[in-house]
Amino acid sequence: MCPVLRLFMYKIIQDPVNGPIKIDGLFSEIIDSQYFQRLRYIKQLGLCNLVFPGANHSRFEHSLGTMFMAQELSDSLKIKSRMPIIAALLHDIGHMPFSHSLEDEFYSLYHVVHEDLTKKIICGNEPYGESTIPDILKKYGYEPYEIAEVATGTSKKYPLFSNMVSGAIDVDELDYLRRDALFCGVTMGQIDYKRLFNTLMIDGTDLVGVEKSIPTIESIIITRILMFNTVYFHKTSRIAQKMLGNAYIDLKCKDSNDMKMTDFQFIEKLMNYGSAETVKKIMNRKLFKVVCRCKYTENEMDRLHSILAHFPEHEYIIDIIPPLYFSGSNRIKNYAKVYYRGNLESINNVSSIAMALSNEMENKQIIVSASSSIYNKIGKLILQK
Amino acid sequence: MCPVLRLFMYKIIQDPVNGPIKIDGLFSEIIDSQYFQRLRYIKQLGLCNLVFPGANHSRFEHSLGTMFMAQELSDSLKIKSRMPIIAALLHDIGHMPFSHSLEDEFYSLYHVVHEDLTKKIICGNEPYGESTIPDILKKYGYEPYEIAEVATGTSKKYPLFSNMVSGAIDVDELDYLRRDALFCGVTMGQIDYKRLFNTLMIDGTDLVGVEKSIPTIESIIITRILMFNTVYFHKTSRIAQKMLGNAYIDLKCKDSNDMKMTDFQFIEKLMNYGSAETVKKIMNRKLFKVVCRCKYTENEMDRLHSILAHFPEHEYIIDIIPPLYFSGSNRIKNYAKVYYRGNLESINNVSSIAMALSNEMENKQIIVSASSSIYNKIGKLILQK
Amino acid sequence: MCPVLRLFMYKIIQDPVNGPIKIDGLFSEIIDSQYFQRLRYIKQLGLCNLVFPGANHSRFEHSLGTMFMAQELSDSLKIKSRMPIIAALLHDIGHMPFSHSLEDEFYSLYHVVHEDLTKKIICGNEPYGESTIPDILKKYGYEPYEIAEVATGTSKKYPLFSNMVSGAIDVDELDYLRRDALFCGVTMGQIDYKRLFNTLMIDGTDLVGVEKSIPTIESIIITRILMFNTVYFHKTSRIAQKMLGNAYIDLKCKDSNDMKMTDFQFIEKLMNYGSAETVKKIMNRKLFKVVCRCKYTENEMDRLHSILAHFPEHEYIIDIIPPLYFSGSNRIKNYAKVYYRGNLESINNVSSIAMALSNEMENKQIIVSASSSIYNKIGKLILQK
Amino acid sequence: MCPVLRLFMYKIIQDPVNGPIKIDGLFSEIIDSQYFQRLRYIKQLGLCNLVFPGANHSRFEHSLGTMFMAQELSDSLKIKSRMPIIAALLHDIGHMPFSHSLEDEFYSLYHVVHEDLTKKIICGNEPYGESTIPDILKKYGYEPYEIAEVATGTSKKYPLFSNMVSGAIDVDELDYLRRDALFCGVTMGQIDYKRLFNTLMIDGTDLVGVEKSIPTIESIIITRILMFNTVYFHKTSRIAQKMLGNAYIDLKCKDSNDMKMTDFQFIEKLMNYGSAETVKKIMNRKLFKVVCRCKYTENEMDRLHSILAHFPEHEYIIDIIPPLYFSGSNRIKNYAKVYYRGNLESINNVSSIAMALSNEMENKQIIVSASSSIYNKIGKLILQK
Repeated sequence: MCPVLRLFMYKIIQDPVNGPIKIDGLFSEIIDSQYFQRLRYIKQLGLCNLVFPGANHSRFEHSLGTMFMAQELSDSLKIKSRMPIIAALLHDIGHMPFSHSLEDEFYSLYHVVHEDLTKKIICGNEPYGESTIPDILKKYGYEPYEIAEVATGTSKKYPLFSNMVSGAIDVDELDYLRRDALFCGVTMGQIDYKRLFNTLMIDGTDLVGVEKSIPTIESIIITRILMFNTVYFHKTSRIAQKMLGNAYIDLKCKDSNDMKMTDFQFIEKLMNYGSAETVKKIMNRKLFKVVCRCKYTENEMDRLHSILAHFPEHEYIIDIIPPLYFSGSNRIKNYAKVYYRGNLESINNVSSIAMALSNEMENKQIIVSASSSIYNKIGKLILQK
Repeated sequence: MCPVLRLFMYKIIQDPVNGPIKIDGLFSEIIDSQYFQRLRYIKQLGLCNLVFPGANHSRFEHSLGTMFMAQELSDSLKIKSRMPIIAALLHDIGHMPFSHSLEDEFYSLYHVVHEDLTKKIICGNEPYGESTIPDILKKYGYEPYEIAEVATGTSKKYPLFSNMVSGAIDVDELDYLRRDALFCGVTMGQIDYKRLFNTLMIDGTDLVGVEKSIPTIESIIITRILMFNTVYFHKTSRIAQKMLGNAYIDLKCKDSNDMKMTDFQFIEKLMNYGSAETVKKIMNRKLFKVVCRCKYTENEMDRLHSILAHFPEHEYIIDIIPPLYFSGSNRIKNYAKVYYRGNLESINNVSSIAMALSNEMENKQIIVSASSSIYNKIGKLILQK
Repeated sequence: MCPVLRLFMYKIIQDPVNGPIKIDGLFSEIIDSQYFQRLRYIKQLGLCNLVFPGANHSRFEHSLGTMFMAQELSDSLKIKSRMPIIAALLHDIGHMPFSHSLEDEFYSLYHVVHEDLTKKIICGNEPYGESTIPDILKKYGYEPYEIAEVATGTSKKYPLFSNMVSGAIDVDELDYLRRDALFCGVTMGQIDYKRLFNTLMIDGTDLVGVEKSIPTIESIIITRILMFNTVYFHKTSRIAQKMLGNAYIDLKCKDSNDMKMTDFQFIEKLMNYGSAETVKKIMNRKLFKVVCRCKYTENEMDRLHSILAHFPEHEYIIDIIPPLYFSGSNRIKNYAKVYYRGNLESINNVSSIAMALSNEMENKQIIVSASSSIYNKIGKLILQK
Repeated sequence: MCPVLRLFMYKIIQDPVNGPIKIDGLFSEIIDSQYFQRLRYIKQLGLCNLVFPGANHSRFEHSLGTMFMAQELSDSLKIKSRMPIIAALLHDIGHMPFSHSLEDEFYSLYHVVHEDLTKKIICGNEPYGESTIPDILKKYGYEPYEIAEVATGTSKKYPLFSNMVSGAIDVDELDYLRRDALFCGVTMGQIDYKRLFNTLMIDGTDLVGVEKSIPTIESIIITRILMFNTVYFHKTSRIAQKMLGNAYIDLKCKDSNDMKMTDFQFIEKLMNYGSAETVKKIMNRKLFKVVCRCKYTENEMDRLHSILAHFPEHEYIIDIIPPLYFSGSNRIKNYAKVYYRGNLESINNVSSIAMALSNEMENKQIIVSASSSIYNKIGKLILQK
């Protein structure tokens, strides 16, 4: 084939995090599909942009970046199959409006998590019957349900690929930690993923490191903790999320198709059929203010509940910040393994930093916030112990 | 005052481009105002994110960044007045949905440009009577209309401040070039603004450079051209913009208040009252494709018009890419001045790069694009000269 | 004065780490002095460039960078005195050839540390009688010995300035951590010093943080540990240092003026009057190889010494890697303080990361390395426990 | 083989410019050889560090970086042969002390350029009979003279490989532009080489671009010009070079083996057998000052020569700054080619920036500098036209 034609067969997308990303054939068709395009309108970090104004990035870019990471990792491990790369591209396709922000509410109402929806969209199962993705996959010789399992990290048939997308060291996290740090303006959060990939190897169905991998794995662990402390669990964006969640819970006409919406379709629905006032407050950052922040104990929870029982439910929020390793989808996971002087060891056994930071994660907190109308009253009652 | 309290009197916002930005008093109140918060929902680069998926940044961050640049420049020039900093924060407050993308259409319909709206919001003039910004400004001792003139680069009373915000070398451009480059993933576009600020001086009402400023001014000129070529005039995002503009022109119930909307309110209106089909195509990147791209001549325009006259108006776009220095708001402006061996000279006289690149800008093009239904037919007719 | 002339009164030096650095008057004269120029030829990290080939940066750039940091910190704290800035520029002027690499040997022979020489050069005391620095300082109204004390972190008269240069949070460390990370190609090691400076305040004679400072202080602590683990205590550069130190100890004609040499004058002396063979090996990276690496215990030391006693002293090295907080000049120092909910607290009490990483630092190790001629023999003896 | 063992078979070197670089077998042996290690002690930019204090990087790192670029380009072009990678590693092995700084003097004395020495070292020809590199190459199945020709860009047998190392778009330049920009602290100089490599293709024996390559090729051209203007032709470092060159010309005991020295061996020789005074001045940056700078004309040259004839030759320098495209080794070369709408075109025909900047390069200048003893006298004579 003429070499120029060959070059016209792929597109290059510029990514602020990873530089140029090559796209061709199968990948291009998936990206052009309606459900993938929808990810443009799902913010990666939900309402975090109210605190970090740069954080307007979407699941669309993150999905492209995760695909790129999977390509790089596959190259490094000399894996020929494109399954992990396809699965990486699709791993977040089922995300609901505002990403993780409303997951608790959706789960309590409809008993699904975004991974369930990811599987349905990839397989074209109801209520995603019109998804074109299964046909695209089949056209290129892939079984949709097999890809769906790898994409959600649950494949028993392809456990290595599954671990690459969602495991102790995975391409999803390697993209989002670096991406979220960049867009939030957090200087820390530099991970030398190339050095890491140069030192990883396959051990059965697992990705494991060697001695040289230790500093890079430490940098992942550290970045993870700093990002949770600084960004993901930032009190203000959690308040905004809870306010949005409550506004949805109060909505009369909610139904499970709401999970198929984009961020702004969701906002429009709340504006038109719910509390426009609350939604405007959230969008314009007129949020509840923190009344107190303290260590979680059952006693303290009882005390707070008994005080707050006298106030209207819509005017305050009690937020329990989980210890890091309980956070959704097991995100904190110091269980990477490395070959060290002949043995396969847990990272905690060979890195004193990793070991030290394992204790860090046991920190459960309560944050009480309230609307301006009751802020002062609540404040007085809570602080007079 | 207790030193800790002093520290609680300002906030720090992290910006991916400029790092930490300090906010206090007056600035904090402006940022909290409804019209400023609205800027969160106006994308800086309109529909460019369809081509550069990282380009989701908004006028909100850009306005904060421009304020920061104005602070740095004022410090460097030892200017005590906060007028340029306030004006920088407010300079884009009147932007319409999708920023520059729809300016032509809004202008043809309502005969206003975004600078007019900026002035009205700052002064609280109709239809922005509810704007709280004039009261905030007055509370801190500033005349709203004076700020409005500086913010739009038209102040005769404060010409230096006016030039700092919008002039031959200005803080607006120094923020947006760097910001747009970062978010679009364009590697070029690094401007050492600190070095520039270290060498600028005040000459009457102008900012002028010295010999040491030349390489930094050259880097601005180069970045400007590269960004226009690569991003701002990218054929695909221009097609998307024109499609959106046409969809709006066709809308029955349009009125001038549409300029007050956010991007998504605007999209919702088009979806509900206009061509939902077209809007969905734009949002999901099902765009017209380029049929031909050629140098602008009147003859060629006539030829194209006569060919295209036989096709339905909604199925094709003739886009004229202006020579760079004609682009809206005079954005290309190689008229910076520098003191060079005793004389005040135009940058073009002392920098052979600047001089060489002045010619670059005379490049007017035609791009014809069409929907898939007529793409092939048009293509044949146009190419058979 | 004519504004152009004002601009010609300072120079701008471009620094890869800090960008443009302005230099004028006093500072320019100090930099032009012979002892300061000598710092161009003292590598910041001694022989680390044998492992990290980018690490060719010198004490010269680091001194400029530290001055810049002191300027930024003074601006932020609104300190008018230029003493901390001058002291920062001069803080390393007494460094011996290869910086810290030979400090132990020089100390054992001549009973001085580089801070002693720094004081002598600043004050023009013997053997630095020809130093022009005291005259420059006096010309601008500064007492050399006062500057000398601030520069070495020992001033009782100016304890705050002293702490700024060398304290719990100091400008020296903020420059070298970032600089060493950049030149060594270590991705981690990004410290948002601007954010830190925006949140620091003066408490009596100390610099202390507030709640907002915590993540930045954590990032300093983490970077410090990672840099020690990865770079400063890298086994191979320590071996090269010890080999060089031993070569010097064996030299017949050594004298205390050797401490005034540059790196290459020192090498030339060893080449001409010592073991040219050894020096060539070091320069060309033909180094001893690690035989074993183990936890430090007195028993293990005894065992190793009894084995190694049978081998020629010049053919092996026993290196004891100190626990981090014992390292020279107290470099590891988690004793930063922050105002936290009304009280002045140690960082370890308010940051679980800092607390966790305090334990990290108790890790004393032994590394045995040997020349190729005895490597195998020693290896067998040591490993057969 | 055990996967852990496989990983121990290569080293990873961290490079500030390119990140982790993998080294194994053949490459490791070459790097360990004496002539390659020597490159650690040849500064990449000669005396430029007197102006840009960060510019202490050596030919050693640049050679590693060029090898890395060659690896990336080969991967992208799917070239299996390792010849271009080996040649890239060795392309600068013949560099003389202070790199390009003294090339003119060495050439006038010994009629060789560094490419000649590169060939001799690779082939083990006199006076490099002890070079171990030919044996290493033969051991791995490569003909030394074939590698030597590719390394110097002169191979007729492997013209494509030759062009990859030294051609219109080559890996040498792609490393040094980015590296020099980083270490000099020049912000401009970001080249997205990955995007470039993704769009290059092989056309016979040439590397050519496509339409998508244009912006990246433009960024190379721009960076090249900016680096020459700002760094490579900086007046002060040229003065230092000329002073050093003159000191060498005056040396009695010079011989062609001086070209085998390292920077500091060369300095030591001048110190011991030549003008120690001059050398100290250069090292401590006590340089001649610029008396005048003007456009080159024959008349002006005659006038200057007639004035300067009355002064001692050692007290002044007339430096002719060549137009960019005459500079040594044809470094300025806008002759990259791209496929553009079906034809293979010169970059100048398809990029108006490239075309515009072709004119930039015709700028020949004279700079006269002098020692402080005659500076004023000369100044008066020259300026009174």
